[in-house]
Amino acid sequence: MPEKEPRAKIGIVTVSDRASRGEYEDRGGPAIEKYLTEVLTSPWEKVTRVVPDEISVLKLTLEELCEDQNCCMIITTGGTGPSKRDITPEVTEKFCDKLLPGFGEMMRKISFEIVPTALLSRQTAGVKGNTFLINLPGQPKAIAECLDAVFAAIPYCIDLIDGPYLTTDEKRIKSFRPKKK
Amino acid sequence: MPEKEPRAKIGIVTVSDRASRGEYEDRGGPAIEKYLTEVLTSPWEKVTRVVPDEISVLKLTLEELCEDQNCCMIITTGGTGPSKRDITPEVTEKFCDKLLPGFGEMMRKISFEIVPTALLSRQTAGVKGNTFLINLPGQPKAIAECLDAVFAAIPYCIDLIDGPYLTTDEKRIKSFRPKKK
Amino acid sequence: MPEKEPRAKIGIVTVSDRASRGEYEDRGGPAIEKYLTEVLTSPWEKVTRVVPDEISVLKLTLEELCEDQNCCMIITTGGTGPSKRDITPEVTEKFCDKLLPGFGEMMRKISFEIVPTALLSRQTAGVKGNTFLINLPGQPKAIAECLDAVFAAIPYCIDLIDGPYLTTDEKRIKSFRPKKK
Repeated sequence: MPEKEPRAKIGIVTVSDRASRGEYEDRGGPAIEKYLTEVLTSPWEKVTRVVPDEISVLKLTLEELCEDQNCCMIITTGGTGPSKRDITPEVTEKFCDKLLPGFGEMMRKISFEIVPTALLSRQTAGVKGNTFLINLPGQPKAIAECLDAVFAAIPYCIDLIDGPYLTTDEKRIKSFRPKKK
Repeated sequence: MPEKEPRAKIGIVTVSDRASRGEYEDRGGPAIEKYLTEVLTSPWEKVTRVVPDEISVLKLTLEELCEDQNCCMIITTGGTGPSKRDITPEVTEKFCDKLLPGFGEMMRKISFEIVPTALLSRQTAGVKGNTFLINLPGQPKAIAECLDAVFAAIPYCIDLIDGPYLTTDEKRIKSFRPKKK
Repeated sequence: MPEKEPRAKIGIVTVSDRASRGEYEDRGGPAIEKYLTEVLTSPWEKVTRVVPDEISVLKLTLEELCEDQNCCMIITTGGTGPSKRDITPEVTEKFCDKLLPGFGEMMRKISFEIVPTALLSRQTAGVKGNTFLINLPGQPKAIAECLDAVFAAIPYCIDLIDGPYLTTDEKRIKSFRPKKK
C-alpha cells in the first residue's frame, strides 16, 4: 500500500574541504536543517552529505540526490566565492536544466546590506527535472538571512516542477501561490 | 519614392501552448499592444504572433520577425517560468548576439515588490542585429509593471543598434538619450 | 634581493576605437587612475593601455596584463553597451575562470538611480588566475559612481585569489575583510 502522505526529501549538502576531512565542524548543514525545521509545516526528511570542493564529487552527489534519492530540493552551503577551490556554482549551473537568476540576485542584494563582500558570492539556483537546487554561502549566519529573502517563492517553484506540496509556517514565511488561471 | 516617415515595426509574440491551440484567450499580446499605443508617440505598427511553447517554433518566429519583417523590437509574453514547457528565455538567449542582463534584473526587482514568485521569472533581453528583444511574463497585469520599469532605456538602445528613432509620451515614460559626446 | 614591499600592479585599459586612433582624448583611463590614487593607501603602480573595440586586441591585452605584467587587478572602461562594436564584456567573460555577477548587478543598480540607460550596460567582473577583472562604462563620470558602489569588496576578493594585500583610505572606502574562521 503506498504511503498516504509521503515525506518530501530535501538534500542538504555541505561543500567544504575542511569539513569533509573532519578538520572543521560542519555548521552550515545543521543551520539549514534548523531553518527547515522552523519554517516547513508539511512533512519532510533530510538527506545530508558533506563533500570536498571537488567538481566530480559534487556532481555525483547532486546526481545521487536527484535521481536515486528523488529529493524535491537540494540546498548547498559553501564553495560560492571567487577562490580557486570554490566550485559549487559552476557545478550547479552545469547540472541544472534551467537557471533561476532571480535567487542569486536577491540573496546577494540582501546580504550586501549586511556585508559588502556579499558581492563576491556567485550563488545561484535552478531546476533539474523535478528538483529545485539552491546555493547558499558557507557562513552559518548567512543561511537564514538568504533563505528568509527567497523562501516565499520556493513552494510554488516546486509545484511548477511537479514536486510535493510544501507548506510553511505563515508567521515566519508567507509562501505565495498565484491563483489558478 | 521611399517613404518619408517609415513606421517602426514591433513584434508582439505570445508564447503559450493553450493560447496557440485556442483553448485560452490571448490576453498578454493585447496588453502589450495597449501599452505601446499609450506610450509611443512615433509611428509604429504591430506584427503579432501566437506560438506554442516549442523551441523550434519560437526560434523560427524570432528569425522571421527579425529578418523578414525587420522589426526593431520584439516583445514576448509567457514561457519565462521554471516549468518544463517554459522555454522563452533560453530561445531568446541563444538567438541574441548580446544579452542585456540589466533588463531582467530590474523587472524581477520591480515585480518582486508585488509578488515573491517574481523570483522565478527567467525573463531576459538582448539584441540581434538591428532588433531589440525583451521577454515579459505571461500574466497580463505584470506587463505594464515590467515595461514601466525599463521602457525609458529602450529608445536609446534602439538608436545604438541603428533602429528607428522612437519617441514616448513624456508624461508616461520619460525616455532618456545621453547628450552626444 | 627581492623587494620588501612590492607594488601591486593594476592594469587600466581604455577600450575605444576613437581614443585608440587619437581622435578623442582618453578620459576614462585617467579617471580610473585618479580614483585609485585617492582610494588606495597601499603601494601600487599603473599599467595603462588604450585599445580599439576589437575582440582579438582586447584579448591579447588582457593576457599580457595578467600573464606578463602579473597585474592583481585589471579595470577596463568602455565597450559595455549594446552596439555592434561594444565587445568588452564578452571578451572579459570568455577570458575569466569565474564570473562574479554581483559586481555588474550592483553597478547597474547604482547607475540606474542616476540614468535609466544604465540598464543597457553589460559590465561584468570575474577572476582569471590571480587577477581580478572589472568592466566600467566609458563615461568618465560613471567611473567613480561605479567603483564607490563596489570597491569595499575588492581588497578581500584579491586576498582570496592570492594577490597582494591592498588597503584603502577608510574615510573614502571602508574595505571589508571577514574575520578568519
